[in-house]
Amino acid sequence: METYMPPRSIGMKSEQLALLSVMSHKMRTDPEIGKLLKPAKSVAKGIVEQRNLYLMQKGYDESTKMPEKLVEQLAKQQAIATSAWKSAKAAKNFSIFKPELEKMVELNREVADILMKVNKAKTPYDALIDSFEPKMTADAIDLVFADLRKDLMSLIERCQSAKKPDTSILRVTVPTGAQKDISTMLAQALGYDVTSPNSGGRIDETEHPFTTGMYDDVRITTHYHQDNFTDSVFSVLHETGHALYEQGMNPTWKFQPVGTACSYGIHESQSRFMENIVGRSKEFWTYQLPKIKDIASPSLDDLELDQFMRAVNIVNPSKIRIEADEVTYNLHVIIRFQIEKGLFNGKINVSELPQIWNEMYEEYLDVKIENDSEGVLQDTHWASGLFGYFPSYSLGNIYSGQIFSKISRDQPDWKAKLSVGDLSGIKSWLSQNVYMNANLYDPADLIKKITGTGLNAKPFVNYLRAKYGELYGF
Amino acid sequence: METYMPPRSIGMKSEQLALLSVMSHKMRTDPEIGKLLKPAKSVAKGIVEQRNLYLMQKGYDESTKMPEKLVEQLAKQQAIATSAWKSAKAAKNFSIFKPELEKMVELNREVADILMKVNKAKTPYDALIDSFEPKMTADAIDLVFADLRKDLMSLIERCQSAKKPDTSILRVTVPTGAQKDISTMLAQALGYDVTSPNSGGRIDETEHPFTTGMYDDVRITTHYHQDNFTDSVFSVLHETGHALYEQGMNPTWKFQPVGTACSYGIHESQSRFMENIVGRSKEFWTYQLPKIKDIASPSLDDLELDQFMRAVNIVNPSKIRIEADEVTYNLHVIIRFQIEKGLFNGKINVSELPQIWNEMYEEYLDVKIENDSEGVLQDTHWASGLFGYFPSYSLGNIYSGQIFSKISRDQPDWKAKLSVGDLSGIKSWLSQNVYMNANLYDPADLIKKITGTGLNAKPFVNYLRAKYGELYGF
Repeated sequence: METYMPPRSIGMKSEQLALLSVMSHKMRTDPEIGKLLKPAKSVAKGIVEQRNLYLMQKGYDESTKMPEKLVEQLAKQQAIATSAWKSAKAAKNFSIFKPELEKMVELNREVADILMKVNKAKTPYDALIDSFEPKMTADAIDLVFADLRKDLMSLIERCQSAKKPDTSILRVTVPTGAQKDISTMLAQALGYDVTSPNSGGRIDETEHPFTTGMYDDVRITTHYHQDNFTDSVFSVLHETGHALYEQGMNPTWKFQPVGTACSYGIHESQSRFMENIVGRSKEFWTYQLPKIKDIASPSLDDLELDQFMRAVNIVNPSKIRIEADEVTYNLHVIIRFQIEKGLFNGKINVSELPQIWNEMYEEYLDVKIENDSEGVLQDTHWASGLFGYFPSYSLGNIYSGQIFSKISRDQPDWKAKLSVGDLSGIKSWLSQNVYMNANLYDPADLIKKITGTGLNAKPFVNYLRAKYGELYGF
Repeated sequence: METYMPPRSIGMKSEQLALLSVMSHKMRTDPEIGKLLKPAKSVAKGIVEQRNLYLMQKGYDESTKMPEKLVEQLAKQQAIATSAWKSAKAAKNFSIFKPELEKMVELNREVADILMKVNKAKTPYDALIDSFEPKMTADAIDLVFADLRKDLMSLIERCQSAKKPDTSILRVTVPTGAQKDISTMLAQALGYDVTSPNSGGRIDETEHPFTTGMYDDVRITTHYHQDNFTDSVFSVLHETGHALYEQGMNPTWKFQPVGTACSYGIHESQSRFMENIVGRSKEFWTYQLPKIKDIASPSLDDLELDQFMRAVNIVNPSKIRIEADEVTYNLHVIIRFQIEKGLFNGKINVSELPQIWNEMYEEYLDVKIENDSEGVLQDTHWASGLFGYFPSYSLGNIYSGQIFSKISRDQPDWKAKLSVGDLSGIKSWLSQNVYMNANLYDPADLIKKITGTGLNAKPFVNYLRAKYGELYGF
């Protein structure tokens, strides 16, 4: 649907998807499931069986407690709000989107009220967060984000006062064919097989890159812009991180609830680990840069490692989240988190959003938003009714920092090995600790089990400080 | 699955397909359908409602009368026999395939016995033919094939005694990129839209070309060989004929039994009409040849129209059906029809197949089969349990001749219009007479309604005689 569907097929495909969603809802809410769960739980043996039944019960309760009418209203409002959002974004005018967003928030308050009871969440917003990051709370996030924000802002200040890297070297023309070969090479280098006769992956093209599928069929997408080759490079590294996670789950749990992703945050930790911690490291490019120069020759013949490292690690406060660098990125997320929290605890009205947004961007990132299109309208999440999703992006970065720190203790030479193209050590570490555990634990428990401590942004901040201190010489 | 699936996905995909087939069988055989059909038929108004209910009843009876165990045995034997067929073909040894083909024939005898009762067919083979060409019988085919065979053999003799065209001019290298652009151009020229923002089609690549989908999403495949550009040209014209039929059915009948293809033979008449009657005509290439020469320039710069017409219309008795030319092709089919008939009326045993096959090829086509791989093992149909399918290939050619003859009476200038790139006349004729009628009539009734006469090979033979007489100068 996203890659090769003939455009005219959209109507037929939408009807098919609607039918499948009705059928799957019927199957998930079959009263027989409710009847079978209780006796099954009384005889469940071992943590895998228990976890499966816990996840089945959670899914069953959430599905059955949600009135069909509300589900239908949400689906309709999602289509309406997304359409209004597109118009508003094109017109750079929030007021077009406002009434539909208000209805969307209202419907999500109803959803949150129901989920609060099912999952015993303390606040409506916590109930929404739980859909993306089970058992995570706004209070826990607040605690971690407060320090993270301060640390990032001081780090950004230091980066800002240093000499700016020259990013014009990244604007050289690299033909699409060469970029495709680079994508394939990098995916293979990370162990995401897209070429062998037994491969379980593919790389295709879409406007917005994503990963889809599971186990033996996990595909990623990217996009190619001739004058911005690093766009495809880093999106492929990012999606490859997602793909390796999906492919790496315990195969004996296939088609069981326990054999799914742990959370959005854990998923994002895997993509950001590959994109940033591995993929923007000097050691990685020591080995890979000559290879991509070979593939793209002569386009990148003049590119030097140090120059490249500075350019792909520029720190530059900006207006658009999805274009943000590794350091400023989390401030974009923290702003969204604060706003969502305010929306659902009643302290912020939808009508105030543009003003609050613009003020926070000035305060957090020191940028002046000129219009709603580059401001509050930039993301599609809220139009789709996705509230509580944004924090998982930063949780992913924070987790990736904790994982980085633990790997560095377990395998002190892992980065040195990157510079000879050897990722076997970290691949087996991630497989054993993250991939294979799949959904056996809630994310907080998984992170504690892996790293020994709970959610903690310090390792991520330390990683950034060390890396940017060295790059910017402070 | 056939175009972009990662290879490792085959296991998962097979399980999914098996599950879907069980689910669809359950839906099709739901006793509620049987209960509803009778009262529905008593109040049905008009031929569309009546036809829908007739087709529903036929499908319901066929599905419910077939024991689940037999369906399961067939599915299993299909996998086993196909695997044995592959081994036998590689080893050029029929005896490897023999025991599995025997079981397959046996199972299909059981199927035929059941279908005989359901559809009141006179013989088991008629019952099998009915699955591909409803209401057609072996006797009716026999009658038409007997004359067709004689006419074709005498035409082939005349072509053989004329000067052979030079086909080496078709072996020039045309890069894959240019061949792809030619494919797109030809599809568009025939009105199969694969490029516009509202297109409902696509061209992809597979080893064996095919057409799939319906209505707003109909896709074709082809394959590209640098040194054989006409291979992709004619496979695209062929599949485009199929695609136009699928896209052109009455849209108000979407998802109704009446809104499906009439028969395999009628489907094939549409592909062969575009591939051969339009696609191998001088008028068509008068307009299109300069266009493909432009696209492929300089590869085809030396290609001249007359030379090209002779080369793509070579008549050359050969061993392999799918490589056969327009004239000899039907002899390959008639051989298979005779053998299938013998297999199901008990006059031929599976063990005799290679000998009978080789003798018939010598008698009909004057070629000497050297081994089973280029002989009785060349097609996959029997391994898949498809008996009664082969005749529809020739029925398609015969129907296409009848359609050609009628169009030529209705629009005497239609061929002249091809030479200025105008296909609008035949497109609207085919739409009105063939596409839009979809499955409203059984194929014999449709052909009679369109052309005024029943199944008749004479127009096809006359078309061939006129065309090849002119090309070969007799």
